[in-house]
Amino acid sequence: MTHIQTQSTWLSDEELRLARERLPVVYVDAVPVRVDEQGRITAIGLLLRARPDGSISRAVVSGRVWYGERIRSALLRHLEKDLGPLALPKLPVTVAPFTIVEYFPDPTVSGFHDPRQHAVGLAYVVPIEGDCRPAHDVLDLTWLSPAEATSPEVRAEMTGGQDRLVVMALAYTGESV
Amino acid sequence: MTHIQTQSTWLSDEELRLARERLPVVYVDAVPVRVDEQGRITAIGLLLRARPDGSISRAVVSGRVWYGERIRSALLRHLEKDLGPLALPKLPVTVAPFTIVEYFPDPTVSGFHDPRQHAVGLAYVVPIEGDCRPAHDVLDLTWLSPAEATSPEVRAEMTGGQDRLVVMALAYTGESV
Amino acid sequence: MTHIQTQSTWLSDEELRLARERLPVVYVDAVPVRVDEQGRITAIGLLLRARPDGSISRAVVSGRVWYGERIRSALLRHLEKDLGPLALPKLPVTVAPFTIVEYFPDPTVSGFHDPRQHAVGLAYVVPIEGDCRPAHDVLDLTWLSPAEATSPEVRAEMTGGQDRLVVMALAYTGESV
Amino acid sequence: MTHIQTQSTWLSDEELRLARERLPVVYVDAVPVRVDEQGRITAIGLLLRARPDGSISRAVVSGRVWYGERIRSALLRHLEKDLGPLALPKLPVTVAPFTIVEYFPDPTVSGFHDPRQHAVGLAYVVPIEGDCRPAHDVLDLTWLSPAEATSPEVRAEMTGGQDRLVVMALAYTGESV
Repeated sequence: MTHIQTQSTWLSDEELRLARERLPVVYVDAVPVRVDEQGRITAIGLLLRARPDGSISRAVVSGRVWYGERIRSALLRHLEKDLGPLALPKLPVTVAPFTIVEYFPDPTVSGFHDPRQHAVGLAYVVPIEGDCRPAHDVLDLTWLSPAEATSPEVRAEMTGGQDRLVVMALAYTGESV
Repeated sequence: MTHIQTQSTWLSDEELRLARERLPVVYVDAVPVRVDEQGRITAIGLLLRARPDGSISRAVVSGRVWYGERIRSALLRHLEKDLGPLALPKLPVTVAPFTIVEYFPDPTVSGFHDPRQHAVGLAYVVPIEGDCRPAHDVLDLTWLSPAEATSPEVRAEMTGGQDRLVVMALAYTGESV
Repeated sequence: MTHIQTQSTWLSDEELRLARERLPVVYVDAVPVRVDEQGRITAIGLLLRARPDGSISRAVVSGRVWYGERIRSALLRHLEKDLGPLALPKLPVTVAPFTIVEYFPDPTVSGFHDPRQHAVGLAYVVPIEGDCRPAHDVLDLTWLSPAEATSPEVRAEMTGGQDRLVVMALAYTGESV
Repeated sequence: MTHIQTQSTWLSDEELRLARERLPVVYVDAVPVRVDEQGRITAIGLLLRARPDGSISRAVVSGRVWYGERIRSALLRHLEKDLGPLALPKLPVTVAPFTIVEYFPDPTVSGFHDPRQHAVGLAYVVPIEGDCRPAHDVLDLTWLSPAEATSPEVRAEMTGGQDRLVVMALAYTGESV
C-alpha cells in the first residue's frame, strides 16, 4: 500500500535520538472504546504500562508515525501492537483527529508531558470489536465505564495528561463529562 | 431506551403538515459507505427513489427525527428502513454531524432543496458492514466508487443538492475530491 | 438574504405550543468566549437569567431557529438579542456544530433538560470581540476564566445540562478540562 | 509563552536534511479566507510562489512546526511571514484541524506531494481581517471567490494537491463545492 520505504528497520537508536532533538515527532493517540449498537461508548480501554522510572501508569494507545507511513497504517500498527492481532479496531472514516495533543519535555508548556521529546499527537477514538490480548510491553488492559475512566481515582493513575485526553475524547462523543 | 412517548403513531398527516409550515423540521442524513480495514471509503451507497413527480433520482438515506426520539435512534431507524434489517450500520462515536444541510422550499436559499418543508439535516457518514436489502420505497441501491459517485453523470442523477452532500462527505473523510 | 418569509410575526403562541408538542424544535446554542491573539480562550461569558419558577441560573446563549431562517442568521440574532448590538460575534467558518445537544422534557433521557419541549441544539463556540450590553431578559453577563467556569460552584449555578455544554466546549477547543 | 528553546536558530541545513530523511515533518497548512459578518467565506487567498524548478504556482500558507513550538504559534508565524504583520489572522478556537494532509516525496501515495520530505500537515481555515502585504518569497496574493478558486483553470495552477486542499476547506465550511 505504501510505495516508499519506511524507516523502521534502518533508523538506529542514535539517529532517532538526534532527530528527536531537532524536530517534533508525529504521534497517533488512539482511545480504544467499546460501543453499543447505536455507536455510544460503553467502555474505555486503558492500558497498564511500566514506565522508565519503574512506576506503573494507565494510558491509551500511542505511538510514533514512521517515515513514509500513512496515518491510518500507523494507527492500525499501534493498535495491533498494544491490543493484539484479533482486536478488530474500526478506524473512523475521517483522518481528521478529534484533537491535537502537544507533548513537551517541559510539563508546563501545554500540560501534556513526554520527557523524551516534543511530540504532536493526532488523537482518535477507535471502537474495538474483537478480542484484546495485550501484547508488547503492556501489562494489562482494563475496560472501564466512562464514569469510572474519568473518576478522580483513575485519573490519578494516568500521567502526562492522558487523563485529560480521555475526558476530551468523551466530551467529543457527546458523552457525559 | 427513550423514556418519553414518540409521536410516530398519533401525529396525523394534517397536524404534521401544519407543524411543518411553522417550524424547521429536524432531519438526519446518512451517507452509507463501505470501508476497508483501514477505515477508508471504498464505495458509496446511493438509493434509487421515485419522486412525487414520477421522476427517479439517486439519494442518500434521509428522514425526520420524531418528537421524543434520540438522534442515534432516528439514524438507525432510517438506515434500517432504507437498507433493511441486516445492514449492520456502524454509527460514528460522536453525535456531532460532519455538516448541517439546510433544506428550503426555495431552492435558491442554500442550494439544498426540499419542496415540502424547511428541514435542518444533521449529516453523517455511516459505514455499512452487513447485507443491504433496499426496503420501503427504495427501488434500488447501488454501490459506487468515490470517483463514480462524484462523476458529472451520477451527480446529474441526484436532486435537491444531494450530489453536493456526497462531495462534502468525501471531502470530510480526506478522500480525493 | 433569506428569500422566504420567516414565521416570527405570524406564529401565535398557541400555534407554537401545538407545533412544539409534535416536532423537535431546532435550536442554536452559542458559548460566548473571549480569545487571545492566538485564538485561545481567555474567558467564557455566562448569562444570568431569571427562570419561570423565579430562580436564577447561569446559561449560554440559546434560542430557536425560525421557519425559513438560516442557521447563521439565527446565531447572530440570538447573540445580538442577549449580548447587545455591539458585541461583534465572530461566527465560525463552518456551520458544522462542535456537538449536538438533545434537550428533553424528561431530564433522564439525555441529561439535557428543557421542560417546555424536545429541542435539538446545534452548539457553537463564538468569540466575541466587541462590547456586550446584556439585553432582552438577561440580568447580567459574567466573563469567567475556563477554570472558574468549570468549577463545582459555577457548575451548580447552571441548569438543564448547560454546565456540561461548557465543559464540552472547552474540551473541543483543546483547553484544559 | 513557550518555555523551551526552539530550534530555529541552531538547526543547520545539513542537520535538518538528515532529520527530514528519518522522520515525518510536522506542518501547518492555513487556507486564508475573507468572511462576511455571518462567517461565510467570500474570498480565498492564494499565494503565488516561485518553485525550485523555476515554475510559478498558487498555494496556501504552509510551513514547518519548530521543535518546541506550539501549533498556534507556528500558524501565526507562517501567516505573518507570508501575509505580512498587519494581516490580523483569526485563528480558530479549536486546535483540531479540519483535515490532515499527508505529503510524500512519491506523489502516488496520497496524491499530496512534497518532493523534499514526508510531511504531515495540520490544515486550518483562517479568516484574515487586516491588510495583507505578501512578504518573504511570495510573489503575489490573490483573493478569489470560492467558485473561482475551485475552477479548473485555477486548480491547474496549484501543485502538490493544494487544489484538493482548497476544495476540502470549502466543503468543510459548508460552502458550495
